[in-house]
Amino acid sequence: MRVLVPFDATDPKTRLSGVLDAEERRGFAVAMLRDVLAAVRDAGGTPSVLSTAAADVDAAVAVDDRSLSAAVNARLGDGPVAVVAADLGLVTAGAVSRLFDADGEVVLAPGRGGGTNAIVARHPSFRVDYHGISVRDHRRAARSAGADLAEVDSFRLATDVDERADLVEVLLHGEGEAADWLSERFEVVARDGRVGVERA
Amino acid sequence: MRVLVPFDATDPKTRLSGVLDAEERRGFAVAMLRDVLAAVRDAGGTPSVLSTAAADVDAAVAVDDRSLSAAVNARLGDGPVAVVAADLGLVTAGAVSRLFDADGEVVLAPGRGGGTNAIVARHPSFRVDYHGISVRDHRRAARSAGADLAEVDSFRLATDVDERADLVEVLLHGEGEAADWLSERFEVVARDGRVGVERA
Repeated sequence: MRVLVPFDATDPKTRLSGVLDAEERRGFAVAMLRDVLAAVRDAGGTPSVLSTAAADVDAAVAVDDRSLSAAVNARLGDGPVAVVAADLGLVTAGAVSRLFDADGEVVLAPGRGGGTNAIVARHPSFRVDYHGISVRDHRRAARSAGADLAEVDSFRLATDVDERADLVEVLLHGEGEAADWLSERFEVVARDGRVGVERA
Repeated sequence: MRVLVPFDATDPKTRLSGVLDAEERRGFAVAMLRDVLAAVRDAGGTPSVLSTAAADVDAAVAVDDRSLSAAVNARLGDGPVAVVAADLGLVTAGAVSRLFDADGEVVLAPGRGGGTNAIVARHPSFRVDYHGISVRDHRRAARSAGADLAEVDSFRLATDVDERADLVEVLLHGEGEAADWLSERFEVVARDGRVGVERA
């Protein structure tokens, strides 16, 4: 399976700027990207990074400065393609295997908050639109294309890491480089019934 | 499988008080509870509600005013028992089946923010502690008991509904009575790149 991994190499993870400085955000984003690439490979996929700028990772990198949806759609329609977000700090090969193994001409792994964190597109006329409530739009797009739709129920795939609260999940459940990177700097704390992260 | 479903019948879902009034919170909480009971039954389990007060639902109800952990632990140790949270607004029989089918003397379904939303306890000396970062404590408790540990990777089981943002998930992914209840009153909206709910 060809697998596109879109990556913001320019200014990644801006919503983490209250907790990580710019260099840390780049380091953490690359660690998550590497975890996604490794999980895709271990699940039998062939990843390539679809990046906004040059990125130093061990995979093919295509730089495309169009919008995310336009850059992905330019690469759909010619055989099965998966699209897997680069910021899945809880990703495992097992979770990606469930995505690949799901029966459906379109397979969606919803992300929290209406997003779509992973897609398998086996139908030639399915196209993506990541704007707005994308999981709802992708369901409609699959129906419009006449494609059989399946969804994967995975917490690991649903958890894209955007905000400080998401770092808790990486520390508690992550199994790769991103979790290692984070656990060298942060720890999970419970205070007044709230669970969060603090600098270690 | 015996399945305990702990339920706060007294003042449920207080963190939703900014968006639902007290009567609505009770109605919504009972709708979620009913969805959980139905999913447990459809997955082959025998649910009983472990409630803080009398509750009008179609299942056995045991009223126990001890702390959640004490009330659950009083019912563990005598054969396999599952514990499934009552506020899983995205629950399906399929997700509960994956919980029941997982191999492990202790099976955990993590909840967001360090919680534990579902457990199967097949080991006689495993006990729960829902205080603090419970998923980490439950992993340790399983190891201390010498129990084989498994975890279920499910977005539907990971999503307990506590806060306004969680209502988005129920509206987009819920398949039961709670989703119906909510969709009569709220809709998902995307504004300025943020996805949320508003009164319909």
